[in-house]
Amino acid sequence: MSRLSELQKRFKSNKYTGFGSGTNNQGDRLLNRDGTFNVIRNGQGFLQSINPFHQLITMPWSYFNTMIILVFILINLSFTIGYFLIGLEELSGIFHTSMASQFIEVFSFSAQTLTTVGYGRVSPIGNMANLLASFEALLGLMSFALVTGLLYGRFSRPYAKLLYSEKALISPYQDKTAFMFRIANARKNQLIECEATLLFNYQDKEAGTRRFINLNLELAKVNALSLSWTIVHPIDDKSPMFGLNQKELEDMNPEIILMFKAFDDTYSQVIHTRHSYALNEIVYGAKFLPMFKRSENGYSTLLELNKIGQYQPVELPNS
Amino acid sequence: MSRLSELQKRFKSNKYTGFGSGTNNQGDRLLNRDGTFNVIRNGQGFLQSINPFHQLITMPWSYFNTMIILVFILINLSFTIGYFLIGLEELSGIFHTSMASQFIEVFSFSAQTLTTVGYGRVSPIGNMANLLASFEALLGLMSFALVTGLLYGRFSRPYAKLLYSEKALISPYQDKTAFMFRIANARKNQLIECEATLLFNYQDKEAGTRRFINLNLELAKVNALSLSWTIVHPIDDKSPMFGLNQKELEDMNPEIILMFKAFDDTYSQVIHTRHSYALNEIVYGAKFLPMFKRSENGYSTLLELNKIGQYQPVELPNS
Amino acid sequence: MSRLSELQKRFKSNKYTGFGSGTNNQGDRLLNRDGTFNVIRNGQGFLQSINPFHQLITMPWSYFNTMIILVFILINLSFTIGYFLIGLEELSGIFHTSMASQFIEVFSFSAQTLTTVGYGRVSPIGNMANLLASFEALLGLMSFALVTGLLYGRFSRPYAKLLYSEKALISPYQDKTAFMFRIANARKNQLIECEATLLFNYQDKEAGTRRFINLNLELAKVNALSLSWTIVHPIDDKSPMFGLNQKELEDMNPEIILMFKAFDDTYSQVIHTRHSYALNEIVYGAKFLPMFKRSENGYSTLLELNKIGQYQPVELPNS
Amino acid sequence: MSRLSELQKRFKSNKYTGFGSGTNNQGDRLLNRDGTFNVIRNGQGFLQSINPFHQLITMPWSYFNTMIILVFILINLSFTIGYFLIGLEELSGIFHTSMASQFIEVFSFSAQTLTTVGYGRVSPIGNMANLLASFEALLGLMSFALVTGLLYGRFSRPYAKLLYSEKALISPYQDKTAFMFRIANARKNQLIECEATLLFNYQDKEAGTRRFINLNLELAKVNALSLSWTIVHPIDDKSPMFGLNQKELEDMNPEIILMFKAFDDTYSQVIHTRHSYALNEIVYGAKFLPMFKRSENGYSTLLELNKIGQYQPVELPNS
Repeated sequence: MSRLSELQKRFKSNKYTGFGSGTNNQGDRLLNRDGTFNVIRNGQGFLQSINPFHQLITMPWSYFNTMIILVFILINLSFTIGYFLIGLEELSGIFHTSMASQFIEVFSFSAQTLTTVGYGRVSPIGNMANLLASFEALLGLMSFALVTGLLYGRFSRPYAKLLYSEKALISPYQDKTAFMFRIANARKNQLIECEATLLFNYQDKEAGTRRFINLNLELAKVNALSLSWTIVHPIDDKSPMFGLNQKELEDMNPEIILMFKAFDDTYSQVIHTRHSYALNEIVYGAKFLPMFKRSENGYSTLLELNKIGQYQPVELPNS
Repeated sequence: MSRLSELQKRFKSNKYTGFGSGTNNQGDRLLNRDGTFNVIRNGQGFLQSINPFHQLITMPWSYFNTMIILVFILINLSFTIGYFLIGLEELSGIFHTSMASQFIEVFSFSAQTLTTVGYGRVSPIGNMANLLASFEALLGLMSFALVTGLLYGRFSRPYAKLLYSEKALISPYQDKTAFMFRIANARKNQLIECEATLLFNYQDKEAGTRRFINLNLELAKVNALSLSWTIVHPIDDKSPMFGLNQKELEDMNPEIILMFKAFDDTYSQVIHTRHSYALNEIVYGAKFLPMFKRSENGYSTLLELNKIGQYQPVELPNS
Repeated sequence: MSRLSELQKRFKSNKYTGFGSGTNNQGDRLLNRDGTFNVIRNGQGFLQSINPFHQLITMPWSYFNTMIILVFILINLSFTIGYFLIGLEELSGIFHTSMASQFIEVFSFSAQTLTTVGYGRVSPIGNMANLLASFEALLGLMSFALVTGLLYGRFSRPYAKLLYSEKALISPYQDKTAFMFRIANARKNQLIECEATLLFNYQDKEAGTRRFINLNLELAKVNALSLSWTIVHPIDDKSPMFGLNQKELEDMNPEIILMFKAFDDTYSQVIHTRHSYALNEIVYGAKFLPMFKRSENGYSTLLELNKIGQYQPVELPNS
Repeated sequence: MSRLSELQKRFKSNKYTGFGSGTNNQGDRLLNRDGTFNVIRNGQGFLQSINPFHQLITMPWSYFNTMIILVFILINLSFTIGYFLIGLEELSGIFHTSMASQFIEVFSFSAQTLTTVGYGRVSPIGNMANLLASFEALLGLMSFALVTGLLYGRFSRPYAKLLYSEKALISPYQDKTAFMFRIANARKNQLIECEATLLFNYQDKEAGTRRFINLNLELAKVNALSLSWTIVHPIDDKSPMFGLNQKELEDMNPEIILMFKAFDDTYSQVIHTRHSYALNEIVYGAKFLPMFKRSENGYSTLLELNKIGQYQPVELPNS
């Protein structure tokens, strides 16, 4: 495959990717669809490997809420057992006589203590119950302080969400072709000082390694991502994709990786995100349809985010 | 319009603005008066398009407070209905007998539970009411944790507020003229490492596109914005405004855009802000009046922020 | 004064200081002793000029605590009046009969409601009191959420505290002299990537302006401020202080300004701070005494922060 | 020792380290094993030297929790004494008659007030007790607000944890040797834009000073630390370790210091960390074993963190 050898000579590998270069000791795809690295980590004890705060602020809301409720029930059950062990004579105001209802009554007393509601219809009167209830109230406050921090952590986490066109296109560009895809900001946050880097990653089957080549961009930086941004790599003689037909491209099993960096003006934070297009996500001979236009009153620009992936077939020039 | 063609040749367009270049598919003005982009976004489902935390920390205080009170009433109404459905015999201490007063009594019991006040004059005694009240107290704590985070988020959001002179002036400058306007820090925060970029945006009617040209500044960077800063673009032969009369300028429908960046020393955050001057905000032949002077005791400098926009007419040199 | 004219020719003014250049419209000293700018701001309405969050997180603790207690008393007084207006018959459990004791009892009931303690010995029983108490409990929670945010804001604010030698010295340096002073980190935070910029600011009486000249430093950057750092400006022929005797220096009324920047490794924040030395804080012919040594066990380095300003007289070489 | 003199001539010292250069006034090792500086600070009053927030968010969890419980008990004891001083007749609902049980009852009442549980079985009825309880409830809320902030501060602190190979190796590299060690991210946080700087620090016994020389790296920067990173310093003729035998190296008492910087994509924060290898942590003639491989399903890469320090003996080329 002389084409590949030629590539190796003409284009300098980017060794700074941090992805490693072995083909035999790595998985299929470097980036998952959500931009995380396709790496499984093991060899650490469970406690060493987790940062509980990190887990708790990144888990889905459904998990988080379920966990809160389960922990609440669990703590209350423990204290309920505690009050039963001490003896119900140390609680004043117990009304029910059946075991089940007494259990619910004490459980509710515990919940009233943990949440610091403390109606006082049932209240501790013996020494042990008094001290246990004092400790439960302290624990309740501490847990609640923790949850306050977690909720704030969940909400305030920098959270860039970009929309990507589902497919990348090989489109006509000037008198040649270009590889292009389209991004837009899914949030109302203002993203400014945006920078894009595009890596062409392919398997060099001869050398048995993965190689990474930086792709030139028509525009690698924009001041603000207020509209959509079509990221365009011209397939000219400075491109590793130049002169390759679809079959040759397939043989290289390429993955084209976007590294995106911007400043989120709303949270005053630098954000980074990643995305990749595999072979089956590249469409030959198509161009994107416009996704913004003058608004009806003529005063503003209207950005139609649902059109981000819309394209139409188009004939490519002979390249 | 040979002047425009000439401009196009002599000055390099800045394509990195992220504003797009179409004149027919864009609105009138690129930046709103408050520095946000004049873009309307649609095509996303409501839930996808909003980041609730972002909405809640950026909405005006009057909205926020109203929302808090409405949500408080709504939650209490729901639980009030819940307690009625369970039956008032499961609550001990109900005093009133008329329906309306009972409703208020149960509503208040619910509010006491949600806020964890829990006087206990009315308190749950039946199993269902006990459990519902336990859950309401948990919900109350969670909601409150959330509000704590929101309030902190609202307060701690980086918030640069610059004052701008209402008008930009064409003033005498050395032996020519200059385009200038004045900014100052509206807050007591110390803004340091300040950088300004000025873009000249006009409609190239021949080509049917908007073009952006960077304007040279007398001073593009200051160490600290402790006083006012007059941002000065000298209209010399390196300026796209050189040699244009007022009529020609009007035909270009220009919008002059400031991109401002600084480091907020108080919050240790980089802040960015934007502003633009349209044609009707430019005054020909005027100069700014001084806005700081030695304080009366002679020890400090007195900065008079209300004078930021004050100017007086002045004759322009023939340019 | 030919020396000054010469200075003006030989050294390029730094115009990027943001301090302004007028001598007649500015105060005596540009920086206060605490590093803030010696600028008084007026001309804004009270509400426009303040950022309440900023005020509340920067005021001294004694003010903050006093304010909390006063606001607490004030809110309770208002609600106490409210409950009296509604009528004490709407509160159950009022025990006292004298006016003063009743007032304290209702005030305490209000405090129990605002803090959500809610003992319930006194509790609302009428409709109006029920609703007012519900609202007070909500207000209590909101206020408390606010205070939580404020306390966190106060604590987490980036807070570099440098120690400076009280005096700057003119010391022997190699075979000439140097202007030097000493800084150290007053906190245990690790400050890394530290950068210092030194400005020589003097009054050019002929031209009636202040001028700023950058001073060369022996070392303008250190990787970490783990020990002390003696900031040294060699007074050689590249220095504006070269060849000036003490009298000439006095005539220029100089203020030497340090701009310091570092990365606080503990809070992951960039911090900036400023300091200046006026004429009466410069000592001719002295050198600093060492302030760190090998610890007694020989394993560590011992940094003695109380010695930061200690110096001894020394003879200067003829320069 | 001509080798050292030669070093001094050929390699430029890095004076920007901030470590100081004296050998007689410094400790043995510059960096502790945990990356903190081996410096003891004194000479400040206790209050000046501490930043309480910093102490409270960096102390171990066991200390923190113990402190919370002790402070809780201490505050309650103080208020308990206060209520006794006022007299138990100002509290309604006291049930016990023995001194010890009364003490526990009042202590528990205090705890119920401080945590705002407020059952109300015991409640203040006299004026003084009413006011003291109001103040205690306010204090409770404030303390709790503080703890909420502290817990959030503890959790959200930027916290890079790198794994280092226990030993650094002298391994074969191309046709020479190289000094190398291996790092990996111990957390699931994504570390990107990683930069490494390596300093060779040795004692120049002739001159009586420590010297620092920057070591060239095969790769000083990687885009992402998703796998492990072997940091490699080739021992070629540009290395100060070139041509030194083990004995000569020992005489120099070297400490090789890593300064590591990265951007934590999860918390959107720049993080810095340091590590050093002393002489007894360097192994001659060994190479690292692989620590990542293709996962069993072939789709992902499997990173085995427990293998980070594993190496095997290997023969070194004659250098």
